[in-house]
Amino acid sequence: MSLEMHPTRWGDPARAAALPDTARGLVELVFPVTDRRVADGPVLLPAHDLSDLVLRDLAAVVGPEHVLTDDESRRLRTRGKSTPDLLRARAGDLSDAPDAVVRPSNHDEVQALLEVAVRHRVAVVPFGGGTSVVGGLVARRDGYAGVVSLDLVRMKGLLAVDPVSMTATLEPGLRGPEAEALLAEHGLTLGHFPQSFEFASIGGFAATRSSGQSSAGYGRFDALVDGLVVATPAGPIELGHAPASAAGPDLRQVFLGSEGAYGVITAVTVRVRARPEQKVYDGWRWPSFDAGADAMRTLAQAQLLPTVLRLSDENETALNLVDPDSIGGSSSGGCLMIAGFEGTPAAVSARRAAVSAVLEDLGAETSGEEPGRKWVAGRFDAPYLRDSMLDAGVLVETLETATYWSRLRRTYDAVSSALTETLGEPAMVLCHVSHVYETGASLYFTVAAPEGDDALGRWLGAKRAAMDAIVATGATITHHHAVGTDHQPWLEDEIGAVGVEVLRAVKRAVDPSGVMNPGVLVP
Amino acid sequence: MSLEMHPTRWGDPARAAALPDTARGLVELVFPVTDRRVADGPVLLPAHDLSDLVLRDLAAVVGPEHVLTDDESRRLRTRGKSTPDLLRARAGDLSDAPDAVVRPSNHDEVQALLEVAVRHRVAVVPFGGGTSVVGGLVARRDGYAGVVSLDLVRMKGLLAVDPVSMTATLEPGLRGPEAEALLAEHGLTLGHFPQSFEFASIGGFAATRSSGQSSAGYGRFDALVDGLVVATPAGPIELGHAPASAAGPDLRQVFLGSEGAYGVITAVTVRVRARPEQKVYDGWRWPSFDAGADAMRTLAQAQLLPTVLRLSDENETALNLVDPDSIGGSSSGGCLMIAGFEGTPAAVSARRAAVSAVLEDLGAETSGEEPGRKWVAGRFDAPYLRDSMLDAGVLVETLETATYWSRLRRTYDAVSSALTETLGEPAMVLCHVSHVYETGASLYFTVAAPEGDDALGRWLGAKRAAMDAIVATGATITHHHAVGTDHQPWLEDEIGAVGVEVLRAVKRAVDPSGVMNPGVLVP
Repeated sequence: MSLEMHPTRWGDPARAAALPDTARGLVELVFPVTDRRVADGPVLLPAHDLSDLVLRDLAAVVGPEHVLTDDESRRLRTRGKSTPDLLRARAGDLSDAPDAVVRPSNHDEVQALLEVAVRHRVAVVPFGGGTSVVGGLVARRDGYAGVVSLDLVRMKGLLAVDPVSMTATLEPGLRGPEAEALLAEHGLTLGHFPQSFEFASIGGFAATRSSGQSSAGYGRFDALVDGLVVATPAGPIELGHAPASAAGPDLRQVFLGSEGAYGVITAVTVRVRARPEQKVYDGWRWPSFDAGADAMRTLAQAQLLPTVLRLSDENETALNLVDPDSIGGSSSGGCLMIAGFEGTPAAVSARRAAVSAVLEDLGAETSGEEPGRKWVAGRFDAPYLRDSMLDAGVLVETLETATYWSRLRRTYDAVSSALTETLGEPAMVLCHVSHVYETGASLYFTVAAPEGDDALGRWLGAKRAAMDAIVATGATITHHHAVGTDHQPWLEDEIGAVGVEVLRAVKRAVDPSGVMNPGVLVP
Repeated sequence: MSLEMHPTRWGDPARAAALPDTARGLVELVFPVTDRRVADGPVLLPAHDLSDLVLRDLAAVVGPEHVLTDDESRRLRTRGKSTPDLLRARAGDLSDAPDAVVRPSNHDEVQALLEVAVRHRVAVVPFGGGTSVVGGLVARRDGYAGVVSLDLVRMKGLLAVDPVSMTATLEPGLRGPEAEALLAEHGLTLGHFPQSFEFASIGGFAATRSSGQSSAGYGRFDALVDGLVVATPAGPIELGHAPASAAGPDLRQVFLGSEGAYGVITAVTVRVRARPEQKVYDGWRWPSFDAGADAMRTLAQAQLLPTVLRLSDENETALNLVDPDSIGGSSSGGCLMIAGFEGTPAAVSARRAAVSAVLEDLGAETSGEEPGRKWVAGRFDAPYLRDSMLDAGVLVETLETATYWSRLRRTYDAVSSALTETLGEPAMVLCHVSHVYETGASLYFTVAAPEGDDALGRWLGAKRAAMDAIVATGATITHHHAVGTDHQPWLEDEIGAVGVEVLRAVKRAVDPSGVMNPGVLVP
């Protein structure tokens, strides 16, 4: 399967499905269906800006065959996969295309490329899976001699495995399934399965603080990282001598989430686990979202979490059930929870029994294993469905946050209202909780609305309103999608003016000429 | 009980015990006993350096009654509690005494004090429990108009409790037992019990990345922190909107471990848990340190940890048993493990059964609950014993590190050899593992040797050799004691030249005039 994605849509064209009949029925029930299909063919790009001298210097590092300036290579590394990204590309706007794509094969080549970039003042955009949904791949162009996409596609090694300490050192260009396949040869798993899993890369997981669908059992990606190697314009930095340390600030946590603005992550040492011998995913039904969320909190605070724990709100539950009568109803179908268990049969059986007892005790009704099977089958498919919806004239986008348990309902209400009010009838807002902690949880919203005349403008307005609601209720501006360019206006709300100054100070120290992903993350 | 400690010894003078007879017997068996008792009476301090103008400006913030320049107040805030600190004080050297002690009552006063310090270029040393064992309270004096100890003794509030999210917001001056007492009124516990628990403060736990004896169950202190408020010379910073976030670098992890060099932590929001209804601590005996460590690894990697998990090596086990015949023997008495369980009776019983089954299966022999009771009774007493040993002419000091499981034996051997070789006969080196992770563990060494003529010089030589051995084997320079001034020569080995530049850059951003704890942490 191809790992390179066209800027107008998600994933492998061979897998792009037409809108399933059931979904189409639903959509037709709520929205006017229009034909907005676009051709995926070549679009004329602006000529690239780089001088022959720059191209020669880049080629001197990686070889001329790894400096690509053809339209197709540039087109396939243009922006990320947010709905605004897709809408712009669908409208023929590829103005953010990089001038060239360079493909280093190891840390030293990355380090040498950064020297070339500094020398010529060329902006560098590290490129892993190209799955950013926050504008993380749209570097500022003004003031630079050009923009280069630094594609990590040749850095796909499993550099080391320590089966005693249960760590593995991975190169950043490995996509999720590639990393899992290499680890599987050693009987190991990383256990990191975000929705972007099939395309997103190890370096991207680290640079954006990704969180996977099995975070309850395996932890967020930033919690899995024991060590990092980063190539910065100021030189390499290697961090991590032990699982934990008191040697001052934890600088791993500065480069985790640095989104390419501080350098290129060239190796990641992660905690791994034995591949699970057994996996089972149970469905549970709750009378309300609040009841389900309370149960999640009870499990988290009892340190009794399953490997996967998700809860859909009433709207999302209704849509997942493809039960057109329920749409828009507040709780007629209740709320679906998935509790999944992975591990040895003994561990699965013990944890499943303990969790099930708590859930039953709190009033859940079992739905058997069918909802879990359905979720597993479709867990990476939502972005394909979004393309089909866009083709049918329906705008679909997601956004997410996290907050403390005591504020969960307040943030849920405020964001839901902001979205429905700004998008107007007949917008649909769905939500689920997919990441839980002892002190709080994430909220992941999905929105669908007719594209209408100015889908991009209407969505950006709705997103602004939702972000303002998130900030007003004290929640975080992003739980696992990162800052990029899209969330930057709210970053000072998150970390304050002094926090922004700290980010800038680190930027000046490691990237004094400002070539690393300019305009992304650091305001 | 008094919470202010004399610079020559640990803790409350009323509790300072003479060396117990059994210990004295042991000491006499190995070391020449000499009388090195020192008087605790007043020592003449150098006159303070601060001008009336500075004192007036400080008093304008906190009131004149909270600006103390008397000898006793300054003496009680001189240095910390490392053995070198004690030896210097015992020799009558109090040259590091602060010029004044100021006692703010809230965040705004701290912020205002920092403005005064910047205006007059006065160095500020945040003071919580005064328990640093790494020279964290010895600010550089040259180039400053004086040194002020910013004592957080008046900031002891429980600012907020969120029983739904299970968080509490604590002021930094709360000592361990004071914080636990306030939380106990709400049925809650922090579960953080380092050896310094009785004197160390919440702010200090955060500023030094403390780790407690129950870290296996409750987590290290940095893992408990959800939110922080810090007063920096550049202004206040408030961090933490959710348990986890992808909003760029995690700046909480920059101020955790910042050791007063970036500002004063004025509030800490921590994850709390229900107070355990039951506590039980089992003793287990292993034929060797390696066998016990392997069992710890098995438990950690099966996510089956007790609340407390400790393993003494052969030497420490022999000494703990007060069995003079075993001293120096390599494995005659085997190795003692303590596995402690806290929580609801059901949780304790389930976890205890599961852990015990694994330990038995791996070859442990039960030692019943007596070793656990003994450990609980004496868990905070080692510093008192150190004073008695110093009084008897025996140098006692500790140092610690952490590394990955696959390197544990190598680091253990290298550090043990470095210490015994530099100290010479009849030095005694003991070690235990008290903090475990899936990928590695801590090593905590205790050293005893005759003081001889130049105890301070000999210890500093041994410490240098041990630190070099830690670095050479790839372990971290400190797992839970922090950097201070003592570990600073090895900080670049830990985080590299670029890492040091990042620390400096942050320092310039938040403390441009360099008044915060100068010379500590940041090289």
